[in-house]
Amino acid sequence: MGNCLVAQSGGPTAVINASLAGVMRANQLNPLYDRVLGGIHGIEGVLAGKLYDLTDVPADEIEILKQTPSSALGTCRYKLKRGQDEDFKRLMAVMDEHDIDVMFYIGGNDSMDTVDALSEWAAQTGSSKRFVGIPKTVDNDLVPPDHCPGFPSAAKLANLVTHGTKLDYDAYTRPEVFVLETMGRDAGWLAASCCLSGDVDLLVLPEVDFDRDGFLSRVQAKMDAQGSCYIVVSEGAHYANGGYLSAGESANDGFAHAVLGGAALTLKQMIVDAGIAPRGVVQDLSRAARSSNFAQSKVDVTEAYELGLSAHGRSADPAFTAQVVGVKRTSGADGAYCAECFAGPASEFANYVKAFPKDWILKDYQGVTGEALDYFRPLVAGEPNIIYGDAGVPLTVKPYNLR
Amino acid sequence: MGNCLVAQSGGPTAVINASLAGVMRANQLNPLYDRVLGGIHGIEGVLAGKLYDLTDVPADEIEILKQTPSSALGTCRYKLKRGQDEDFKRLMAVMDEHDIDVMFYIGGNDSMDTVDALSEWAAQTGSSKRFVGIPKTVDNDLVPPDHCPGFPSAAKLANLVTHGTKLDYDAYTRPEVFVLETMGRDAGWLAASCCLSGDVDLLVLPEVDFDRDGFLSRVQAKMDAQGSCYIVVSEGAHYANGGYLSAGESANDGFAHAVLGGAALTLKQMIVDAGIAPRGVVQDLSRAARSSNFAQSKVDVTEAYELGLSAHGRSADPAFTAQVVGVKRTSGADGAYCAECFAGPASEFANYVKAFPKDWILKDYQGVTGEALDYFRPLVAGEPNIIYGDAGVPLTVKPYNLR
Repeated sequence: MGNCLVAQSGGPTAVINASLAGVMRANQLNPLYDRVLGGIHGIEGVLAGKLYDLTDVPADEIEILKQTPSSALGTCRYKLKRGQDEDFKRLMAVMDEHDIDVMFYIGGNDSMDTVDALSEWAAQTGSSKRFVGIPKTVDNDLVPPDHCPGFPSAAKLANLVTHGTKLDYDAYTRPEVFVLETMGRDAGWLAASCCLSGDVDLLVLPEVDFDRDGFLSRVQAKMDAQGSCYIVVSEGAHYANGGYLSAGESANDGFAHAVLGGAALTLKQMIVDAGIAPRGVVQDLSRAARSSNFAQSKVDVTEAYELGLSAHGRSADPAFTAQVVGVKRTSGADGAYCAECFAGPASEFANYVKAFPKDWILKDYQGVTGEALDYFRPLVAGEPNIIYGDAGVPLTVKPYNLR
Repeated sequence: MGNCLVAQSGGPTAVINASLAGVMRANQLNPLYDRVLGGIHGIEGVLAGKLYDLTDVPADEIEILKQTPSSALGTCRYKLKRGQDEDFKRLMAVMDEHDIDVMFYIGGNDSMDTVDALSEWAAQTGSSKRFVGIPKTVDNDLVPPDHCPGFPSAAKLANLVTHGTKLDYDAYTRPEVFVLETMGRDAGWLAASCCLSGDVDLLVLPEVDFDRDGFLSRVQAKMDAQGSCYIVVSEGAHYANGGYLSAGESANDGFAHAVLGGAALTLKQMIVDAGIAPRGVVQDLSRAARSSNFAQSKVDVTEAYELGLSAHGRSADPAFTAQVVGVKRTSGADGAYCAECFAGPASEFANYVKAFPKDWILKDYQGVTGEALDYFRPLVAGEPNIIYGDAGVPLTVKPYNLR
């Protein structure tokens, strides 16, 4: 019986540690491996031989780990690509040195591509080492699962902030616009999810080329009709020529105003310059949305944890490699939301971006369809039973990734 | 038996509606007044005769109101000043018209000044109308209470976001700085409270004149020692000449870089330009920190509600006018935190700004003393039992201030 390795990669989420906890706890319940070794700072630390033994972490600490945001093992932006033979050899040497048979890699589509590439390399070199992916991303842009751990909690927080700031905005009488910016460079899932709150007047997504005049006329119409306009924009919103809104107006339409900062700031300035409103408020959720432990979705924590359990359990099959586990949506007898775990080829999870469906987008920035809301609604539901410390804040584990 | 009026003013908070709920519920338990009338959009709507009858709002809706962020009656930025006789006469006429004996005004120091001015005017003109203040502010800058409703919940959210984003920041290995900006134009209470999380490396407050070179040398020292530097800055941080950091560097030290945006963006750019770190992350809490219902402090909701009860009950005394209720800190038998309500002259609450104490500030931007942490700790403690809706998000009441 050999050991297994687990590591995290890409941007942290509110529940990426729940998937880690799933792998750790699964091996305590069913010790398929002698040791569960954590790779520090993703593939980068693994290549440097930085490992941390997670085998005997007590069950109560694993419970706290499930509610700890961010990546307890640290993360990296290093992408292992096909053809980097030196890195591949080095990784295999580290795995040999520590008697590691299976590596679990928790990450986004780049990481799933790494799982695919490593599996391919192992097959080509006759190695019996195996590689299994566990997906995460707040962007929700992975194919083929119904949704991806990390997204539901980010969507929940985005909804709560949307509703809170909308109430704040509505308390005033003075004319101004409100622009909320969410993460989402290639896909607008997170921005679109804000519509669940019922508070969004206009929605700007990367899936629709931004049209300045058309947008401004819609802002004007909302201001005329109701004296207010609450706008949500995805950071990846862009013009037809591909230029991001976040790059500022001047780069794209020849206007004189150089705008630093994000897409929301650009939209606010554009509206003010057009004379539609004398001022505006910008709220950028930035990292606060992805690493919160005060708005975890219970569905999300549960699924992230279960994908960890599933990946570990399925790896008992010596043929299980180059595979990624994911969530499939099903319905209970009463039509209630249910989730099933499935496994599919890593190649199908990697290298694709699942855009927010065009037929769920209402025209003229008017938001999303009822079908989209039906998709989002069950994902944000429920609160986990958070364990609080003496200071009245949720307990978290000390990261295993000391800098 | 006449009626009473209640209105909200200034920036919304997470618990300003709990004080409103207190006044409303108190009159159901002890009907000192025939009707409880809500003034829409503060003094602005009251002057326009916009009132909303709150007398018979059901108890279960009042419970939801307690957990609804922002100002359910709307707010305004209109300040009623001494000498505005037309406004004063108009207000008295509205009160006469609606048989209003007492006005409860929930707001910050400007609003407490309004309470004082109106009481003074009534005394001078022989009117028996009375005016009572209930304080709120996320800035915590009111004299003389120990602290002010709205601040503890804002501090709790600021702490949770600090801890979550610090964990997120620490997950990476690449050299960068992190700068979190909080509200607080004149006083640094909210920024200082972030130190409770134990995650703050450097703290920049309005109470200490900003020294660019001294600050940068501390950032350099942190980067050298630990490879990271987590900075919290109050929006009101300023240079010795009074120029705000948020106005950008160029306005203050002759540097070439014009910086749009807030204090955090300025600090980040300053650090990058100085070559201390190649990049930085900025997180501006902005309005998300003051109008959240997902991180209310139980202490805060309780005290805000009780101040509403207290103001209403004390107003049974026909001599009770020009007074504001507030929270005094006491200790239980075991040294545990206790709060008592007191009432004091509105003039003492108005027109002063309570700065964060200088002797609680560590030198060289190193944070705050243990005494400061002892002050903050009990305030953020505890979570109210939030009532959730079917969609898994906290229920809120529909604002009474339709635009």
